[in-house]
Amino acid sequence: MVQKKISQAVIRRLPRYYRYLRDLLDEGVERISSNELSIRMKVTASQIRQDLNNFGGFGQQGYGYNVQFLYDEIGKILGLDTHHNIIVLGAGNMGQALAKYVNFEKRGFIIIGLFDVNPELIGKEVRRIHIYHMDEIEEFLKSHQVDIAVLTLPKGQAETAADQVVRLGIHAIWNFAHLDLALPKDVVVENVHLSDSLMQLSYNIVKNKTQ
Amino acid sequence: MVQKKISQAVIRRLPRYYRYLRDLLDEGVERISSNELSIRMKVTASQIRQDLNNFGGFGQQGYGYNVQFLYDEIGKILGLDTHHNIIVLGAGNMGQALAKYVNFEKRGFIIIGLFDVNPELIGKEVRRIHIYHMDEIEEFLKSHQVDIAVLTLPKGQAETAADQVVRLGIHAIWNFAHLDLALPKDVVVENVHLSDSLMQLSYNIVKNKTQ
Repeated sequence: MVQKKISQAVIRRLPRYYRYLRDLLDEGVERISSNELSIRMKVTASQIRQDLNNFGGFGQQGYGYNVQFLYDEIGKILGLDTHHNIIVLGAGNMGQALAKYVNFEKRGFIIIGLFDVNPELIGKEVRRIHIYHMDEIEEFLKSHQVDIAVLTLPKGQAETAADQVVRLGIHAIWNFAHLDLALPKDVVVENVHLSDSLMQLSYNIVKNKTQ
Repeated sequence: MVQKKISQAVIRRLPRYYRYLRDLLDEGVERISSNELSIRMKVTASQIRQDLNNFGGFGQQGYGYNVQFLYDEIGKILGLDTHHNIIVLGAGNMGQALAKYVNFEKRGFIIIGLFDVNPELIGKEVRRIHIYHMDEIEEFLKSHQVDIAVLTLPKGQAETAADQVVRLGIHAIWNFAHLDLALPKDVVVENVHLSDSLMQLSYNIVKNKTQ
């Protein structure tokens, strides 16, 4: 893997490349030119060449890109060549939906436990994943390697829970709670603010109508 | 409402302002200075002043912002002063989780029907919302005003379903399916690509470790 510094803008586009390359592999395509990929992805061929140049020695003139190689390299850069153990804090609707979604597992994101405070949920299982009480989290983290905590708790509980797992050594949070977390700099956070996304859509509906 | 043209960058920040202003209202705060808001939101006071200047005559020197007024104005710009009727295509885990989530309703986003092809789901209800067969969609759209279609179908079915509802007059798609939709220009699409978001997190975990 080439250790060149890659800009955040490129990084943000990588999951999309990865997705399209996966489709190509599924279709049995072994190589593709930047022009063909450009048509599929609706970005310019020159952007594709620039982006993929970051990953070095492929994409030769007259050959195009080796799809499998590119897929693997991007996968490595995205950290998808290793497993990530995940716990989900909040076993409500969203937490359970995520736990039931098997596609994350295919990418190496393994949910190993759900946590909640609702007595009706504790002890149950979702797709064989056990629901623990939030009080058991410290014990759990002592005996399990956990890489990512997913936050699907209501706003009021999310902050305390995030602080707690960070104190217990978690360095990555996938945050579905409807708030911005204030956490130490060495903790990486990726937000999925569904309401914000819906409002953005709503704004564009209004704009579309008045144009 | 001021009809000044507002940049996309500002628009993208509006849901976040809206969220913080809601919190302030809930706390009983009637007015706030850009400095106080800046500390809460962790953006510069000058950015806040610039952003909120787009909405005209408030934020006076020595008074600050009238929280309720600002909240209402931003709400109007985001189209939250009207109801949006929503259908969800795909009544699987994610579709059901969204249907069960009552907070969208508080913002005027009302889910009025779920659609699926799974015979085990058809006819059931999720929080009193009926699950119809996908074949019933044309009939449904004739008799109901629908503003937004949410796509939570598997990749293979999502594209056809999106094309169908767009042909039937839907102009806004909230897309959870793991693909980019190719739709007419007058259709607004907002994507929630959860896998992309998880890969972004995964990348930052790797980067964090190697720094």
